[in-house]
Amino acid sequence: MTATIIDGKAFAAGVRGQVTTEVERVKAAGITPGLAVVLVGEDPASEVYVGHKHRATIEVGMTSFEHRLPADTSEGDLFALIDRLNADPAVHGILCQFPVPAHLDERRTVARIDPAKDVDGLSVTNAGLLATGGDALVSCTPLGCLMLLRDQLGDMTGLDAVVIGRSNLFGKPMAQLLLRENCTVTIAHSRTQDLAEVCRRADILVAAVGRAQMVRGDWVKPGATVIDVGITRGPHPDKPGKSRLLGDCDFDSCAEVAGAITPVPGGVGPMTIACLLANTLTACCRAHGLEEPQGLTA
Amino acid sequence: MTATIIDGKAFAAGVRGQVTTEVERVKAAGITPGLAVVLVGEDPASEVYVGHKHRATIEVGMTSFEHRLPADTSEGDLFALIDRLNADPAVHGILCQFPVPAHLDERRTVARIDPAKDVDGLSVTNAGLLATGGDALVSCTPLGCLMLLRDQLGDMTGLDAVVIGRSNLFGKPMAQLLLRENCTVTIAHSRTQDLAEVCRRADILVAAVGRAQMVRGDWVKPGATVIDVGITRGPHPDKPGKSRLLGDCDFDSCAEVAGAITPVPGGVGPMTIACLLANTLTACCRAHGLEEPQGLTA
Repeated sequence: MTATIIDGKAFAAGVRGQVTTEVERVKAAGITPGLAVVLVGEDPASEVYVGHKHRATIEVGMTSFEHRLPADTSEGDLFALIDRLNADPAVHGILCQFPVPAHLDERRTVARIDPAKDVDGLSVTNAGLLATGGDALVSCTPLGCLMLLRDQLGDMTGLDAVVIGRSNLFGKPMAQLLLRENCTVTIAHSRTQDLAEVCRRADILVAAVGRAQMVRGDWVKPGATVIDVGITRGPHPDKPGKSRLLGDCDFDSCAEVAGAITPVPGGVGPMTIACLLANTLTACCRAHGLEEPQGLTA
Repeated sequence: MTATIIDGKAFAAGVRGQVTTEVERVKAAGITPGLAVVLVGEDPASEVYVGHKHRATIEVGMTSFEHRLPADTSEGDLFALIDRLNADPAVHGILCQFPVPAHLDERRTVARIDPAKDVDGLSVTNAGLLATGGDALVSCTPLGCLMLLRDQLGDMTGLDAVVIGRSNLFGKPMAQLLLRENCTVTIAHSRTQDLAEVCRRADILVAAVGRAQMVRGDWVKPGATVIDVGITRGPHPDKPGKSRLLGDCDFDSCAEVAGAITPVPGGVGPMTIACLLANTLTACCRAHGLEEPQGLTA
């Protein structure tokens, strides 16, 4: 068997297109969705990410608010900015780019953001809403994986899903989403005994551990859908001195067994910003009592 | 093999004894832990439960505040009482006995209770804290099951745990607790395919579906620890016209295979009020910056 390669880049472009259409609908009602991104300090990678988010926000017709604060910004000054953004009716989503400098606390910073504007879905309130079946804003990467799975599989009722990794950012919300889809869900992790055997039960296998090529083809149930969330930089096999991005799955051997698989890069990665835009749109619709877009939420 | 019968009644008595000792310590610091129970209407079963809770609270040396409101109490009046209890420094735990009359909304009622006093662990905030590894107040029944499992098994790292049932009240928090204990956790439910096969993988099997005697001995892995959370009333086999309480597990056949098993009644049931007292003590210690009791929290 040779797996279908799930084209996350194309799918993400479709999501952005849908967001663009929905933003036009919302604008027709006199409202422009707005996303505020806060960057503290000058981490080069963060600068790049924030730039990508800024351009993507503009492209779908939303307003992008960028707030760049010096690296020595006090918690009081950061919180004062977040409070202003919480109160600003033109801002529907707020994202603080992590990591923040060491003197600031990520958990406290997230807790300061109004949960209704927490488009990264990182707050305790949104985790609790997700866990109790409420209208959460869901962390972007698991939401993106859910969209890819729905597109690939349709109804997931009764399927065995295995999530490797139990982080607050990905593994735990991903498990909640799969449970909502009526999967039988197993959460595996570094302390799991015989991980290969656990993986071999999975109709849906989601790997998010950050260990390059850990999942081999013989860990995959024939015909399973494999979602690879890992991104590790490793040496390029053909170009000495060059690097390449590697997923948690050994793509070649897994693709021989799986029914469908996401590549790295070009699989889950492109979905993250698309879902950030989707979440901002959702937050805007909820704030104004407008109908929520179909297919862009959990 | 014949299983160890886990004596929940004796263990719960031990927990109450520990709470009594800790209450004395807290009182020595000039603070008396207080639990407020709110009952709306006159549901006979609820009256009995509230009576049990009242007596148990007094027995461990805490203050019990009972608030009985008429069945036609408005949401505004109920919320005004909850607001007063939230603000009252003598009240460390607040519990609204469910079900409430149909004109009141359970979710909104829970949301009104200060999460720091939500000793039933039902609020979105406590679900989110549990899901993100924070200091949650954890729903009493799963907390009780955790205590029994810790006592029985000690370190649970790497064990395969299967929870049948995905309710907000039990299944989902139980899964979170087992994940914290480093188990590989599977959540199964009514849509699970081949539930028997899923159960047979479990080193720890927790059944909470409310279907009498559903789990048979041949669903149990030899030596597994079986926790039976179900309580259903069924006809008594020997006394015509009489009833008896049944668990989700067929006790006799499961006890032949399991390493340890909780009976129904006398297993998980007695732990619930004991954990309510433990949660009230924990909430009191947190409110006053006192050292938390060992072994009484997640």
